Amino acid sequence: MTRIDLNCDLGESFGAWRMGEDSALLDVVSSANLACGFHAGDFMTMLQTVAAAMERGVAIGAHVSLPDLQGFGRREIRVTPAEVHAMTLYQLGALHGFARAAGTRLSHVKPHGALYNMAARDRALADAIAAAVCQFDPRLRLFGLGGSALVDAGAALGLVVVAEAFADRRYRADGTLQPRSEAGAVIDDAELATAQALQIALNGAVTATDGSTIGMHADTLCLHGDGVHAVRLARSLRSGLEAAGVRIAAPGEA
Amino acid sequence: MTRIDLNCDLGESFGAWRMGEDSALLDVVSSANLACGFHAGDFMTMLQTVAAAMERGVAIGAHVSLPDLQGFGRREIRVTPAEVHAMTLYQLGALHGFARAAGTRLSHVKPHGALYNMAARDRALADAIAAAVCQFDPRLRLFGLGGSALVDAGAALGLVVVAEAFADRRYRADGTLQPRSEAGAVIDDAELATAQALQIALNGAVTATDGSTIGMHADTLCLHGDGVHAVRLARSLRSGLEAAGVRIAAPGEA
Amino acid sequence: MTRIDLNCDLGESFGAWRMGEDSALLDVVSSANLACGFHAGDFMTMLQTVAAAMERGVAIGAHVSLPDLQGFGRREIRVTPAEVHAMTLYQLGALHGFARAAGTRLSHVKPHGALYNMAARDRALADAIAAAVCQFDPRLRLFGLGGSALVDAGAALGLVVVAEAFADRRYRADGTLQPRSEAGAVIDDAELATAQALQIALNGAVTATDGSTIGMHADTLCLHGDGVHAVRLARSLRSGLEAAGVRIAAPGEA
Amino acid sequence: MTRIDLNCDLGESFGAWRMGEDSALLDVVSSANLACGFHAGDFMTMLQTVAAAMERGVAIGAHVSLPDLQGFGRREIRVTPAEVHAMTLYQLGALHGFARAAGTRLSHVKPHGALYNMAARDRALADAIAAAVCQFDPRLRLFGLGGSALVDAGAALGLVVVAEAFADRRYRADGTLQPRSEAGAVIDDAELATAQALQIALNGAVTATDGSTIGMHADTLCLHGDGVHAVRLARSLRSGLEAAGVRIAAPGEA
Repeated sequence: MTRIDLNCDLGESFGAWRMGEDSALLDVVSSANLACGFHAGDFMTMLQTVAAAMERGVAIGAHVSLPDLQGFGRREIRVTPAEVHAMTLYQLGALHGFARAAGTRLSHVKPHGALYNMAARDRALADAIAAAVCQFDPRLRLFGLGGSALVDAGAALGLVVVAEAFADRRYRADGTLQPRSEAGAVIDDAELATAQALQIALNGAVTATDGSTIGMHADTLCLHGDGVHAVRLARSLRSGLEAAGVRIAAPGEA
Repeated sequence: MTRIDLNCDLGESFGAWRMGEDSALLDVVSSANLACGFHAGDFMTMLQTVAAAMERGVAIGAHVSLPDLQGFGRREIRVTPAEVHAMTLYQLGALHGFARAAGTRLSHVKPHGALYNMAARDRALADAIAAAVCQFDPRLRLFGLGGSALVDAGAALGLVVVAEAFADRRYRADGTLQPRSEAGAVIDDAELATAQALQIALNGAVTATDGSTIGMHADTLCLHGDGVHAVRLARSLRSGLEAAGVRIAAPGEA
Repeated sequence: MTRIDLNCDLGESFGAWRMGEDSALLDVVSSANLACGFHAGDFMTMLQTVAAAMERGVAIGAHVSLPDLQGFGRREIRVTPAEVHAMTLYQLGALHGFARAAGTRLSHVKPHGALYNMAARDRALADAIAAAVCQFDPRLRLFGLGGSALVDAGAALGLVVVAEAFADRRYRADGTLQPRSEAGAVIDDAELATAQALQIALNGAVTATDGSTIGMHADTLCLHGDGVHAVRLARSLRSGLEAAGVRIAAPGEA
Repeated sequence: MTRIDLNCDLGESFGAWRMGEDSALLDVVSSANLACGFHAGDFMTMLQTVAAAMERGVAIGAHVSLPDLQGFGRREIRVTPAEVHAMTLYQLGALHGFARAAGTRLSHVKPHGALYNMAARDRALADAIAAAVCQFDPRLRLFGLGGSALVDAGAALGLVVVAEAFADRRYRADGTLQPRSEAGAVIDDAELATAQALQIALNGAVTATDGSTIGMHADTLCLHGDGVHAVRLARSLRSGLEAAGVRIAAPGEA
């Protein structure tokens, strides 16, 4: 039976500021990437989101980021591999603190925002993340863009890597994402996004912006938690996948 | 054979700012309380200080603090027990990340600055810290001011509590510390501080400000890492204790 | 003709996090208290909110706060008068930077959250705020709780003080606010809040929680910007006041 | 009579962390660039450093930075011109708050660290800084690397630009600074640095790393405040320049 993971970035509130429909999305996804205080997610939010994910049996991962609250981790900062290694350990450990206190464990790590993009193309930064994960707990799965330097770095260290694709983003013929700055880069329509999810899950392929069909292997699909239609699109996608016989489950789940 | 622990607050640099004579003090103490990023100690400093402590065989503890870099964790902030519980787990986990990656483990937890004082007198906050420590790892030792609410809270949860006293601070007849704002509250003279250390270690007593001798049980003595004479006083104290036949060792060390 | 100011806390977004219905509320109020980066309001938000207030002819004030993003400035921090003096100058200057660049000027200063409460009861902190305002620009009006230490401190330095009252909070017979922790402390009903606003504006009085009528002089009424009904309540209150012949205008406006 | 300005980055302490020999250096320089809280310089430090500079008659400038305390403003962050414009206004205003309260005014603006380098080569960022300065106060002088995009941007808006050169850094034949990563890039020897300062001040030239003599116009020389020899080198440089008949004065000083 075909199976795929659905992951979403959650726990992105901070102090008095609320963000995202965490409660509703936790009913849809199988993996939750939790902010660790560097781009979002203060310690109260982390504690509460770990508890909420546990209740729903959703796998918990660390969404590690560059230190940039004001920029929400979306601005590239010229950091060294040594800094990336240390900031990954710090955030991973911090989230682990809540998981361990709650009697559960982390299942994966996924870099956030600018760090995700930097680690996708810069092998030295990717190696730094993979090394931190491996040193902390080699059983942790490493989520990264399919075909990226991060996935390569994780595999080179023997980590279980989880290739990620997007149901609601368009791909170019070379397999890279169409930049958000271009019109049509984001698929708002729930039916179209579901169709792309099915194409990836069942055929291992997507239709690129030039109309060609390209191979697209993915172990997990990333759902966006923000935006007005986030919850509706997420539910539609899950029910569309399930109706087509695809099982939704976190990687490694029995 | 009489034994006592010597502990010191270390890893208090932040970014480009250096603080403390960490390298020299690690040669003197048996336990190091490492800042966890809330009052000091960025992730690079934490990684490096964990490594430096390991090299010297010094026991590593989390020096958890209120979130206040500018105030160095010394300003009281009116936080709830729930906030204190969560901030303790966050910092404990973060430091654990570095320890685990380095192949070692944390041995203790000690609140810093204003949180130390608040947890000494406010049982609800003390309970919140003790609960976080217990949930994270019940083998961790909890350092607190001898006779404080924190020590009581730790004991109530079955934690090993480590009572702390000061060699270089004067005590009042009721066993409380003379406030720093009063003249003579800090003992700068290495010989006098060593004498007080010996009195505590060997006799379980100190001479109070009114000249009376009061009972003062302590498992660990806190050495201050800042100030011009910190290293000299620390060395003098250690050699004075050893010359009197007191063994310096971290709690729990064979 | 009776006149009163309506003020609201605005510009409380931070980075990717949105808060408050700024655009709608700027159409209702005559004075806007803008966050200055310490509890909310990053530099982009400040620039944009200054521009938005200018467009509507709303008077701009600095909403100075304790430095506490995570706590939204609502947690008391034990700061010295010297610290309060300096943090007031910093934030006042920062907001002034945007006002001056936009070709306008600040009209007032109002402490936020925990600092508002601390300055209401602690004369030394109140003096520190008043001195900072006076040194920076003695033409700035100082907003404070009617009858508070802050209003006294401002008056003592010759500042124009603007006494603030609340249309949607209940008062006790001694003139203090009923704590939010007590049921009924906040008036959610728009009609009741409008009635209290009219009682204050026209009669200089409110009905206290014990049923007695007490004197309540106010130059400005504070509208809350958060909460689901904020905009509706604000509009109802303004139209209610205007229908009763009360003119809504910022202090000092011709 | 030949004249030149000597400037130094000061007020770079933060909270409990001390940095730099501010007091000694204020006796040597004619212009002080004060950190504004983004890379260093909390509000207490700013207030105190403004007062100290005033006492010595040293011209006060805003040392505006990217928001990065941990990285001391030395890490490049991918920010937009709109963000740079707003962060410049914020910091400029904040420092102005202290200057105005103290009865003095700012004389100049100089970007710090990574922002200095980014504004030297990226005209859009340079324009954003120049526009902010111009909107805030067109009388402010803009300090920038001689020949940089920043100096061009300032001149294009009609600002008085002050070209900066370094007495203790080696230049390449194309007029750019030898990168710090290369051996010999920093001139530690006080005599050699003084010789280069004289060559710049008197001849408008420096000897490049390849031995050639290149033109190097400078209105101000930057002295480094950190490093063990900072104060000695600064004093040596000043006395060397004065002995050669060069007058040390801030730009615009009578």
